[in-house]
Amino acid sequence: MYLGCQFSLYPMTDRFVEVILDAVKAVGAAGDRLRVETDDISTLLVGAPEALFPALQACFVRAARQGGHLVMNISLSRGCPGEPDDPLCRSPALSAAARPAAGADRVSAALARTEPATPSGIPAAAQIALYPLGRADYMADIADCIAFLKRSCVMVTAKHFCTRLEGDAAGIFQAIETSFLGFAGHDDHVVLTAILSTGSPTQRRAA
Amino acid sequence: MYLGCQFSLYPMTDRFVEVILDAVKAVGAAGDRLRVETDDISTLLVGAPEALFPALQACFVRAARQGGHLVMNISLSRGCPGEPDDPLCRSPALSAAARPAAGADRVSAALARTEPATPSGIPAAAQIALYPLGRADYMADIADCIAFLKRSCVMVTAKHFCTRLEGDAAGIFQAIETSFLGFAGHDDHVVLTAILSTGSPTQRRAA
Repeated sequence: MYLGCQFSLYPMTDRFVEVILDAVKAVGAAGDRLRVETDDISTLLVGAPEALFPALQACFVRAARQGGHLVMNISLSRGCPGEPDDPLCRSPALSAAARPAAGADRVSAALARTEPATPSGIPAAAQIALYPLGRADYMADIADCIAFLKRSCVMVTAKHFCTRLEGDAAGIFQAIETSFLGFAGHDDHVVLTAILSTGSPTQRRAA
Repeated sequence: MYLGCQFSLYPMTDRFVEVILDAVKAVGAAGDRLRVETDDISTLLVGAPEALFPALQACFVRAARQGGHLVMNISLSRGCPGEPDDPLCRSPALSAAARPAAGADRVSAALARTEPATPSGIPAAAQIALYPLGRADYMADIADCIAFLKRSCVMVTAKHFCTRLEGDAAGIFQAIETSFLGFAGHDDHVVLTAILSTGSPTQRRAA
């Protein structure tokens, strides 16, 4: 099983190079638990979610603390049949979270596993979309995931093609991690795309 | 059938508000052929691909002509079972491009339909991922799409979780449109995510 993401930081400032290079240093805390490859479009992280999500959150928070408007774009993937099995990706968290079929009360199980996140102090808005691939009943997985999000600590609003989340950045990363792990089987191919935004000068859309 | 996208522009400059507001004016050329809704994270476009793709390309090119480093993030979706049927989305281009099953020579058909795009003069790099949902044989659709891209006018490189494209922005938008329309049935649920980047100061990864 292969698990990871491609992510990018977009600091809307003339100082974007400096902000990005500083923020990406936060990935270093994961040491050799993550494989990291950067090019001109994105940074690849490969490894278990236990290492991956703290690294993503640390990058976002570090860049956000520089002030101004910042966006992070993330494409998470697990179980792609075109990728190799990789021991670096073995994860007790995924084994505990993944359920083989729809129908079980995955929403309550996901809530029960979710301990309150330590707030980062960074207010953020996000939009996410979950894509469980290869199965006819994928819409049930998505419906369960949205039911979980509505009962989580983040504020949830429906949008076309995605779900909007608002709250502290730590709560949003926790909601993303649980959504990614908890609504398909351990070896299923699952993609989750997310955009996180902070410091936008645009007024939020009325709820 | 419902077809559209959420897209965002990220100009990496202190002048980002001005660049975005100017670029989004380019959507206006589509008149009432597109439904447009903007909030603090993205802009929704709903309508037929014949109106949608020229609008996306016009926004990107208009923003890119301001100079500096610019990224556009796009999440395209068609046929989502959770969305309504919408007459605005009816599309002869989709009817002509969509094929009901894998196995037909969709690659040659896609190439035959693709006329050379008029260059925009904006060199760009992109990464895209196609997600045909709800079907066990989705990896065959993705393989056909990548085979098409390799024979198209853009330069193609494999990356984990996505495919890298390089070329003139007009060629990249054309490749994205053909990938989105040509490798699943007319009413299938298909998602395509894309990041386009221009003016990056980061050296490209060696091929």
